[in-house]
Amino acid sequence: MALMLDGAALLNQSIHNIDTSEIRKMFDLAAKIERPLNLSIGQPDFPVPEPVREAMIKAVRDNLNSYTPTAGILPLRQAIAEKWRTHNGFTVEPENIIVSTGVASILFLLFQAIIDPGDDILLVDPYFLIYPALLKYQQANLHTIPENFTAADIDHLLASGVKYKAIIFSTPSNPTGKIFEREQLAQLVRLAQSTGAVLVSDEIYEVFDYENKFVSTASLYPEGTLTLNGFSKSHAMTGIRVGYLGAPANLAPIVQKMATLQQYSVVCAPQPGQWAAITALQTPVVEEMKLMRRRRDLVAGLLKGVARYPSPDGAFYIFPEVPIESRQFAEAAIAERLLIVPGYIFSAHSRNVRISYAQKEEILEEGVQIFRRLVERFRG
Amino acid sequence: MALMLDGAALLNQSIHNIDTSEIRKMFDLAAKIERPLNLSIGQPDFPVPEPVREAMIKAVRDNLNSYTPTAGILPLRQAIAEKWRTHNGFTVEPENIIVSTGVASILFLLFQAIIDPGDDILLVDPYFLIYPALLKYQQANLHTIPENFTAADIDHLLASGVKYKAIIFSTPSNPTGKIFEREQLAQLVRLAQSTGAVLVSDEIYEVFDYENKFVSTASLYPEGTLTLNGFSKSHAMTGIRVGYLGAPANLAPIVQKMATLQQYSVVCAPQPGQWAAITALQTPVVEEMKLMRRRRDLVAGLLKGVARYPSPDGAFYIFPEVPIESRQFAEAAIAERLLIVPGYIFSAHSRNVRISYAQKEEILEEGVQIFRRLVERFRG
Repeated sequence: MALMLDGAALLNQSIHNIDTSEIRKMFDLAAKIERPLNLSIGQPDFPVPEPVREAMIKAVRDNLNSYTPTAGILPLRQAIAEKWRTHNGFTVEPENIIVSTGVASILFLLFQAIIDPGDDILLVDPYFLIYPALLKYQQANLHTIPENFTAADIDHLLASGVKYKAIIFSTPSNPTGKIFEREQLAQLVRLAQSTGAVLVSDEIYEVFDYENKFVSTASLYPEGTLTLNGFSKSHAMTGIRVGYLGAPANLAPIVQKMATLQQYSVVCAPQPGQWAAITALQTPVVEEMKLMRRRRDLVAGLLKGVARYPSPDGAFYIFPEVPIESRQFAEAAIAERLLIVPGYIFSAHSRNVRISYAQKEEILEEGVQIFRRLVERFRG
Repeated sequence: MALMLDGAALLNQSIHNIDTSEIRKMFDLAAKIERPLNLSIGQPDFPVPEPVREAMIKAVRDNLNSYTPTAGILPLRQAIAEKWRTHNGFTVEPENIIVSTGVASILFLLFQAIIDPGDDILLVDPYFLIYPALLKYQQANLHTIPENFTAADIDHLLASGVKYKAIIFSTPSNPTGKIFEREQLAQLVRLAQSTGAVLVSDEIYEVFDYENKFVSTASLYPEGTLTLNGFSKSHAMTGIRVGYLGAPANLAPIVQKMATLQQYSVVCAPQPGQWAAITALQTPVVEEMKLMRRRRDLVAGLLKGVARYPSPDGAFYIFPEVPIESRQFAEAAIAERLLIVPGYIFSAHSRNVRISYAQKEEILEEGVQIFRRLVERFRG
């Protein structure tokens, strides 16, 4: 009689380097609440715009349901190149664009292609939680710089002599909503140029830009920037799974190796979603952004005088400071039916929590009331 | 002035372990032909069945376009469990099923989760080309057993004392079309039980089973088999990107780690595709299979007396022997406008080529005529 196989014993060493347990613990706790006030949401609550849905439906009906080229259909890559040229002020050739199943897949392929164990990587802090998780999976050596860094901070990093392989950040930022102004981006470019790092600019929240502050990093440093974007946030296409990366010609070998790996893993992004994405690039979300801006103003207003927060320029998050450790605060909030994401998930140094305003206004109001009472209670 | 960044210099060590250049060379050659007779196709030429397309369209319209749970929507996992229970004779709990963006993604996640460098892995030869490519990426130690193995061959492997971590095969087979009968599967089970290996049974071509020979491996060894399947072939959904894996409870830790990695890479399979997949499980493809069977009979008949081939029980491939090295033969075929896939891609020992009959009958006839003339020419 054979022994019963033990799945845990069959796992390899490296898979233990990836850990999602902290965020899952929060979800598990949250799942137990009845009638939650959910301000933890990471996706828009507006629907995929009608023309985009119709484009997808047309593709399905027209039998555009088969494999696409590994890097994505050419018309989509051409449309992305055109968007960057006309809207963002930099040029990427369609053959140096890869489309995949969302920005998360793009990050995964990118890190698999360029990160060796021990590579020094700089993250702007707070950071999107997938960055450090995937980088630890690749056994990178992580460094951080606070998002409100100054030229003096950059000088300090330069003095340390560390040669970063990549500098990674999102603008607008998840979790703070901050959008980098030209001056701060120029400082990151200076750091990248001096250390030989590639800039990885995650611009997935680009259109959530309430004061027209957004600048694409590649417009400042085209030959040293990989630009990431997608349709999950701008057009609420989180479940359609289309994201992309573009590179300058000198970084094309990275795109090619990402495509090689994609050919034998996700194979290609879903074809109907790729056709929908072309329409998305032609479909402005003006009303949706007005709605989000109103909510941003509502929440920021309600929080004024209650808690300090980084300038909530964009995305749909606000990141207020709380008087106690963020995990404790989030747990206390859950006890009051309020779901928010504790800042420790986005930063080792954080005493903040992430409030998402991709939610109805009455729920935002009720949630912020509870937040306010909690802050007052813990401030004592 | 900073130095221009060099993308090739930024690549890491491990990405060079994956190589798709051989198959790409073939594609590049093939792309140059005008009016090719394309018998190299790896996807059905029938459309996604109407009810499946309509289910997908309904999902898009109903705004089922957002993230799903990492492992897939529960109704789909329940429907898969039900299919396996009623059609395939084994039981998997829905919580031990993971849905991803196709079987290729499933393989990638699985190998990332269980393969350590140097692990001994046994492939049935010829094999689907993604298996060795991804296994080499994981630095596994590859072994092969010919697909027409006997009990004596298994005894021989057992005598070698190698402890395989996994035994991997497809049934029906890509590239040969062979379907394993119960007796041969029982031999693989014996080998797995004696060496502690997990069986990885890729059943993506299950419905392409022209003599009702197909048996699911898990029906013989439920506690030691991971079963892989998807909708790309059965319902022509290659560009929809939905595949799945099911495990017995004792192997659940593997599914959980695959989900952990999926959470931070592909995130989830496309939601509309998941709803379409539920309908696909309820949509038989009887007429499609009659068509494919007719073509199989046509090609097998035309090849009789021309070349020997393994029994083309299923899938939509036939794998005839050729008189010369398979690469040379395929190149000579391209010169005659005929696209076929050389066997060396599927086996180190092969003097065969893969002919796909997912193609119109007049093209099959013309293509096989050319094949026949080439065989006669090289046989001399």
